[in-house]
Amino acid sequence: MQPDLEFLHLLADAAAKETLPRFRTGAAISNKLHSGFDPVTEADRSAETAIRALIHAHFEDHGIMGEEHGNVGLDRDYVWVIDPIDGTRAFISGLPVWGTLIGLYHKGRAVLGLMDQPFTGERYVADRSGTYYRGPEGKLQVKSRPCTSLAQATLLTTSPHLFTGDQAAPYGAVEQKVNLFRYGCDCYAYSLIAAGHIDLVIENDLQPYDIGGLIMVLESAGAIVTTWDGGRPEKGGNIIAAGSKAVHQEAMALLNG
Amino acid sequence: MQPDLEFLHLLADAAAKETLPRFRTGAAISNKLHSGFDPVTEADRSAETAIRALIHAHFEDHGIMGEEHGNVGLDRDYVWVIDPIDGTRAFISGLPVWGTLIGLYHKGRAVLGLMDQPFTGERYVADRSGTYYRGPEGKLQVKSRPCTSLAQATLLTTSPHLFTGDQAAPYGAVEQKVNLFRYGCDCYAYSLIAAGHIDLVIENDLQPYDIGGLIMVLESAGAIVTTWDGGRPEKGGNIIAAGSKAVHQEAMALLNG
Repeated sequence: MQPDLEFLHLLADAAAKETLPRFRTGAAISNKLHSGFDPVTEADRSAETAIRALIHAHFEDHGIMGEEHGNVGLDRDYVWVIDPIDGTRAFISGLPVWGTLIGLYHKGRAVLGLMDQPFTGERYVADRSGTYYRGPEGKLQVKSRPCTSLAQATLLTTSPHLFTGDQAAPYGAVEQKVNLFRYGCDCYAYSLIAAGHIDLVIENDLQPYDIGGLIMVLESAGAIVTTWDGGRPEKGGNIIAAGSKAVHQEAMALLNG
Repeated sequence: MQPDLEFLHLLADAAAKETLPRFRTGAAISNKLHSGFDPVTEADRSAETAIRALIHAHFEDHGIMGEEHGNVGLDRDYVWVIDPIDGTRAFISGLPVWGTLIGLYHKGRAVLGLMDQPFTGERYVADRSGTYYRGPEGKLQVKSRPCTSLAQATLLTTSPHLFTGDQAAPYGAVEQKVNLFRYGCDCYAYSLIAAGHIDLVIENDLQPYDIGGLIMVLESAGAIVTTWDGGRPEKGGNIIAAGSKAVHQEAMALLNG
């Protein structure tokens, strides 16, 4: 077996078996860090265990970077980047905008990507050939939309509270310029860019596993995802994703003052 | 036919036929007001037309208050309160957290309520006997949860930008005290209180049709919904909804400084 889209479906099915039955059940929640609120659910942990077991069984020589169970072999050619539940606050609140993110990097560059939302039944898988969606609307190859300017764009981000200090003004300049903005989306927002429903997502301080599964989903749909300074997004950090070059460039110019 | 839960299902089915096919299609959007952004879609208008036609056919002597097509007979004993798409920004952004809201008032007091989210297939209908959900988890009678303090509560609201001037500090005091808060939910947040997944929603400046369909959904699930000063919510205004009396009282005390 090669790591391909079929294998991504296997991983997503295994993760969904752990996450979905625990969604909206008031499962036990613990605080991961003493500072701030960063909840981890049973679902998160057991989904990552299930994903890792499949990877280990089929690709023993691959490295794995996971949010819950640590890192293995990050210096290997192939490294999996896993966030079993991106959007734990959404998960805890019963909102179906969390997702399972799984990416595969080859020599540091994303080559496969997956975003799965089991409650709505929406799944995006991507390799270099394209980004493929299945959900309530059926099975589709998706494309981002060619929005021509920031003034016509729809922007999503998790919360305006993300942007403090030096970042508040540049982010605010983008928010002021767009046609419409909205909060509270996590990974779901990036998938909406890939499917051509929105145009822009801006976030900061992401871990590699917060974005790794989304890179191919975005790029193979024609979207652009970089750090705020235009670099590759595989290592996370401050991330901007846009459905078109025009929106990406205009937003980048404002973010970089 | 009497106005009952079955009739609510009829109305919701008719509305969904107009809204769902237009969701995620980039349907034409117009600005309703020159100041600010308040989009109205074809879906909104045609869903309200469909709902009004059914009400008119079955209950010709009832009044109707609707967001899109104006008001008829607001002085009658029975008045329907309709928001075909609550959460137009979510609708436009492809986010499945908008909903169709329909309430029936008798002499100014809510007696029936409906919230429907056709993309996820989630529907809440309520009369005095209870609040009944159907969705991916099956058919359930739902109850709010008995959260005992604000410090343990999950709060949702549409955006912190709602609260300006005199309202900023009291709202901020609530947000600081809760265990978890999240933005960007519209009517979906209220249904999450009714189903026991979250504990508190605070909004301001609501129209009657923004809350009318949700009053029975909340109250018949054991939740509390009032204006910020503790009055009946049927006329809209500044609204607080809580799943338990303890959370309602504690949040009210902070809101009223």
